[in-house]
Amino acid sequence: MDNQLLLYAVPLSGVIALLYALFKAGWVSKQDAGTENMATIAGHIADGAVAFLKREYKVLVIFVICVAILLGFANTGRTDSSPIIAVSFIVGAICSGLAGYFGMKVATKANVRTTNAAREGLSRALNVAFSGGLVMGLSVVGLGILGLSVLFIIYNNQFSEIGQVINLISGFSLGASSIALFARVGGGIYTKAADVGADLAGKVYEGIPEDDPRNPATIADNVGDNVGDVAGMGADLFESYVGSIIGTMVLGAAFVPVFDSMGVLPIAGVILPLVLAATGIIVSIVGSFFVRVKEGGNPQTGLNTGEFGASFIMAALSYFIITAILPASWTAESGVTYTSLNVFFAVIIGLAAGVLIGLITEYYCSTHHKPVVGIAYQSVTGAATNIIAGLGTGMMSTGLPIIVLSAAIIASHQFAGLYGIAIAALGMLSVTGIQLAVDAYGPISDNAGGIAEMSGLPSEVRERTDKLDAVGNTTAAIGKGFAIGSAALTALALFAAFRQQAGVESIDISEPVIMAGLLLGAMLPFVFSALAMGAVGRAARDMITEVGRQFNEISGLREGTAPAEFAHCVDISTKAAIREMILPGTLGVLVPVVVGFVSKDMLGGLLAGVTSSGVLLAIFQSNAGGAWDNAKKRIESNIEFDGVTYGKGTEAHKAAVVGDTVGDPFKDTSGPSLNILMKLIAVVALVIAPLIQ
Amino acid sequence: MDNQLLLYAVPLSGVIALLYALFKAGWVSKQDAGTENMATIAGHIADGAVAFLKREYKVLVIFVICVAILLGFANTGRTDSSPIIAVSFIVGAICSGLAGYFGMKVATKANVRTTNAAREGLSRALNVAFSGGLVMGLSVVGLGILGLSVLFIIYNNQFSEIGQVINLISGFSLGASSIALFARVGGGIYTKAADVGADLAGKVYEGIPEDDPRNPATIADNVGDNVGDVAGMGADLFESYVGSIIGTMVLGAAFVPVFDSMGVLPIAGVILPLVLAATGIIVSIVGSFFVRVKEGGNPQTGLNTGEFGASFIMAALSYFIITAILPASWTAESGVTYTSLNVFFAVIIGLAAGVLIGLITEYYCSTHHKPVVGIAYQSVTGAATNIIAGLGTGMMSTGLPIIVLSAAIIASHQFAGLYGIAIAALGMLSVTGIQLAVDAYGPISDNAGGIAEMSGLPSEVRERTDKLDAVGNTTAAIGKGFAIGSAALTALALFAAFRQQAGVESIDISEPVIMAGLLLGAMLPFVFSALAMGAVGRAARDMITEVGRQFNEISGLREGTAPAEFAHCVDISTKAAIREMILPGTLGVLVPVVVGFVSKDMLGGLLAGVTSSGVLLAIFQSNAGGAWDNAKKRIESNIEFDGVTYGKGTEAHKAAVVGDTVGDPFKDTSGPSLNILMKLIAVVALVIAPLIQ
Repeated sequence: MDNQLLLYAVPLSGVIALLYALFKAGWVSKQDAGTENMATIAGHIADGAVAFLKREYKVLVIFVICVAILLGFANTGRTDSSPIIAVSFIVGAICSGLAGYFGMKVATKANVRTTNAAREGLSRALNVAFSGGLVMGLSVVGLGILGLSVLFIIYNNQFSEIGQVINLISGFSLGASSIALFARVGGGIYTKAADVGADLAGKVYEGIPEDDPRNPATIADNVGDNVGDVAGMGADLFESYVGSIIGTMVLGAAFVPVFDSMGVLPIAGVILPLVLAATGIIVSIVGSFFVRVKEGGNPQTGLNTGEFGASFIMAALSYFIITAILPASWTAESGVTYTSLNVFFAVIIGLAAGVLIGLITEYYCSTHHKPVVGIAYQSVTGAATNIIAGLGTGMMSTGLPIIVLSAAIIASHQFAGLYGIAIAALGMLSVTGIQLAVDAYGPISDNAGGIAEMSGLPSEVRERTDKLDAVGNTTAAIGKGFAIGSAALTALALFAAFRQQAGVESIDISEPVIMAGLLLGAMLPFVFSALAMGAVGRAARDMITEVGRQFNEISGLREGTAPAEFAHCVDISTKAAIREMILPGTLGVLVPVVVGFVSKDMLGGLLAGVTSSGVLLAIFQSNAGGAWDNAKKRIESNIEFDGVTYGKGTEAHKAAVVGDTVGDPFKDTSGPSLNILMKLIAVVALVIAPLIQ
Repeated sequence: MDNQLLLYAVPLSGVIALLYALFKAGWVSKQDAGTENMATIAGHIADGAVAFLKREYKVLVIFVICVAILLGFANTGRTDSSPIIAVSFIVGAICSGLAGYFGMKVATKANVRTTNAAREGLSRALNVAFSGGLVMGLSVVGLGILGLSVLFIIYNNQFSEIGQVINLISGFSLGASSIALFARVGGGIYTKAADVGADLAGKVYEGIPEDDPRNPATIADNVGDNVGDVAGMGADLFESYVGSIIGTMVLGAAFVPVFDSMGVLPIAGVILPLVLAATGIIVSIVGSFFVRVKEGGNPQTGLNTGEFGASFIMAALSYFIITAILPASWTAESGVTYTSLNVFFAVIIGLAAGVLIGLITEYYCSTHHKPVVGIAYQSVTGAATNIIAGLGTGMMSTGLPIIVLSAAIIASHQFAGLYGIAIAALGMLSVTGIQLAVDAYGPISDNAGGIAEMSGLPSEVRERTDKLDAVGNTTAAIGKGFAIGSAALTALALFAAFRQQAGVESIDISEPVIMAGLLLGAMLPFVFSALAMGAVGRAARDMITEVGRQFNEISGLREGTAPAEFAHCVDISTKAAIREMILPGTLGVLVPVVVGFVSKDMLGGLLAGVTSSGVLLAIFQSNAGGAWDNAKKRIESNIEFDGVTYGKGTEAHKAAVVGDTVGDPFKDTSGPSLNILMKLIAVVALVIAPLIQ
């Protein structure tokens, strides 16, 4: 097959994704938004979300300009790089920002339309919610592959040395990663400040209803779902997707040497990840056709068919793609012989590891397995034992995923070297388009339920949206498994790429400087989490104070006759999120630069430390948070221990609510940010590698 | 100076320590135990403590015999080792067990005598409590140095090859470490099961008083202080002490080569740590003379004078010892030139790092600084924000200690290579004798207060014991800093020693097998903590059920007219602790063996992972626990926020109690066990190194 032609087909898949996203977005917009009351509420949410994103992006523009200038300046006059890397960086940042913006914009339209569709039935509601999610998913992969492949084609025609091309492309990943970190942290702080603040206001001031439309923080809470769970997650997956493609490209340059005589393009190993990703986009669109549910049926089946179907097709197609692009077998510089079949096996290992980690995640977090029931049981003796049980469950849940991950690392490396590790990660992420659609569908349904509640719609509407919200769980757990697994593998691939680019022979961990780097690296995720959690705590307090003020000062609010000043609460969350995201975000970019210029060996240790401790803390925090959340839900649907039934309103439930609140910043702010942090630090290292060589 | 003569003087210091401990123990025993009621209560506590230790040791005997047989068998017919290593292992285990037993035995006498002395005045009470602690401290260092030096002298005369001698000696460290892990975990589970169970019983069953002599779990709680905080900590510090000496000895064999021509003993680098430790014992005894307080004065001054005085004298003396034993300068095999002065600087760096980490620990945990006040403030909005704030504080508190530690690693290595890192750890631990006395004085005073309460003594007695209990905090924080810092440095030294003994050229962290080992290693402390916390949770529940049963079935217990069945509660804690310590303890020994036989490279990665993640989780857990504890105490002594005063009985206090309860297993079970775990795994690796070479 002509690889050159294949390369030009890659951006086309991005265009197709964006066009289809546009079409779906138009369809969503055309749906009926329901009653005037519903439209007003949805309008508040949409306005708040856009206002936040605008203010966030204003700050990020300054950051992007500063970093771009520094990047351009530092790479001037170098033969192994070029100031053009600043352009890649800016394009990466813009694509990431746009993907988040598009996705969120449609999500804030889809929410109320899902509510309205749920008035008619489940099937239509699923369709609207999933379509909203799909726009997000396709925007992310479309912009990712389009930006990346166009830059690559331009650079590849402009510069003769593939190493230099790869180096320039890595700027795109840096742009995506740094925006992702800010978006994830900022969005995470926003959503949890509003959520925790709204929940706790009722505890502090007597007579203020929690989870009630009269609570002035509810709009902010719903805005948070959009800026955190939709836009934040979009930026997150954008960077995972881009990072795994670029990591594979960097390693691919050295992995598959020149084979002109065999009719194989010299850069076959570099092009392969782009082609796989492009194919994944088309497969995701095809998979989305399978997502439908009959009235009265289980929406879970639809989502599963779509996602697993897409993964299966992708696995089969990747066999043909890999054997077509790569030679049947070749001998690497190291003297090891590789075959294209082995590379295919590495992809399958990645997919299998992702599914396994997802299933383990589901075991530890789902309402009907032992761990969550155990936490519910420990809630009977109060909040303290609930917390101890949740922390213990989260820590225990790191065991199996790490064993799976370690096995995947060794096995994929056995099959195809470091390239194998990178492409295993890519295997997990190739159908990101549909995975992200399922992920984003969750907060849209959640929002739809909130709107139903606030507009006083009949309870069956809320029941339907709850049903939609609940069924995404298994699929979302699998998605989480893929996110964590791919983050670790991508970080390793980037780590190997850094070593290669920085000319570090070996990173001997028994060297004291490297050991010091390892300890410093392992410490970063702890401090980073502390900053994120502290920010949530402070912002939640401000929110609680504001809610109290409104209940005291606005007469009629308590009785439901006067409206709350939602905008003030939105403003508090917005300001806090912007203010508090700056320190952790900047830390992630600055630390590797500073350490790298002190000693590139220490930077190697730092990367290893950040990756190992980051993966563990991420699994611990998101699983503990998920388990606490579901332990509360489990009690809410009544559970019996030793002959006594515990349900909503019991002391056990109150204890479980404490756990749920503690778990909020764990699973939605600090936990997911760590996935980005470890990749961002690796990408920064990769980008500065030529400078510290 | 004749090094040979010095070597024979080393065991003498151990004998002096033990004789002085015997003398002090006799003095404590001769003190009056007070009223009959006091003696009865103290008798229950002492009986419970001894009964637990006996049952624990019965299990450990089986473990020790099994491991000894395996060790002997595995090392048969080898020239680089010998089955005699099994003897070292047994002697190490016995010395560790004896140190814990002696110390606890005297502590359970000192507690009631401290109470009685407190009836007269503060000065006498301090004297009794500190003397009790001193017996513990001197038993530990005395048995440690005696066992180690006698074995070394025998082996050194028996075997010609110093490498073989060192290898045999490492069995002693293995014995100490494995007993320490079981003792720390078992004791930690015991004490927190009783503590948490007693506290929460009141929450679950109405009308049961918490912290009240009628609560049947109070005796078990007091027994727990002795088996966990005294015997467990004794075994812990025994292994730290021994581990740091042996780590330095192993590296010393290669560090200072043969210098017969310069009149320096060939094994100068091996003997130095023994001589430094021996000197530290005498200095500790001298330092103990400074610990006294005038009536009405502050006991803190006495403790500080004793501990800091001892450290200062030790620092000065070590200069003379090092310059006397080592040549003024020499060139190592690597071509680097070292001087004895540089080795002295490494010791000073160790001491300085220990003090710094201690001060940072104090900042994060003491009642009058920002972090604890912040947690108290977040308690106002309930348990959830209290927990979030505590977790955040614990995570944040890892930052500065890790920076200090990293700097110490690099600096001490700069001065004196890997030997410098090992001897920096030794510098921190050289005055363990008096440090441990101060540490053990804490639970003795705590127990004394409990006995005062239960025997219904006048409140001024309780006030005096509380004063004693409170003042040990700064000194204890410094001790904690030394424990964490030395554990990390010792683990690194053992790690380097393993690499040397296993003949591993380089542990390149970018190799996938080693990266997998790193991830697996980093995961172990999480799973280990989860097991320990789960055990506390389960045992606490059993305790709660038993307390409820007694209050329901024993008529008159609620009114205080009938006695509770204390023995049942003691039995529950004992059984649970023994049962639950086996899995985590065995895991610590087995995992490195299994991984080592799979791949020695992977074992290298595992060690790096365990060390980095272990240090971080240990700091996180113990500081979070300490901060929660003091946030509760801070509220109990009334604190004002925004014009409102919060004190005992307020909602803020209830929230702070939740944090304190969560912190209990953190700071007293899982946290401190991790220090041992990381050294145990390193020692196991060191011992099996010749077998997997």
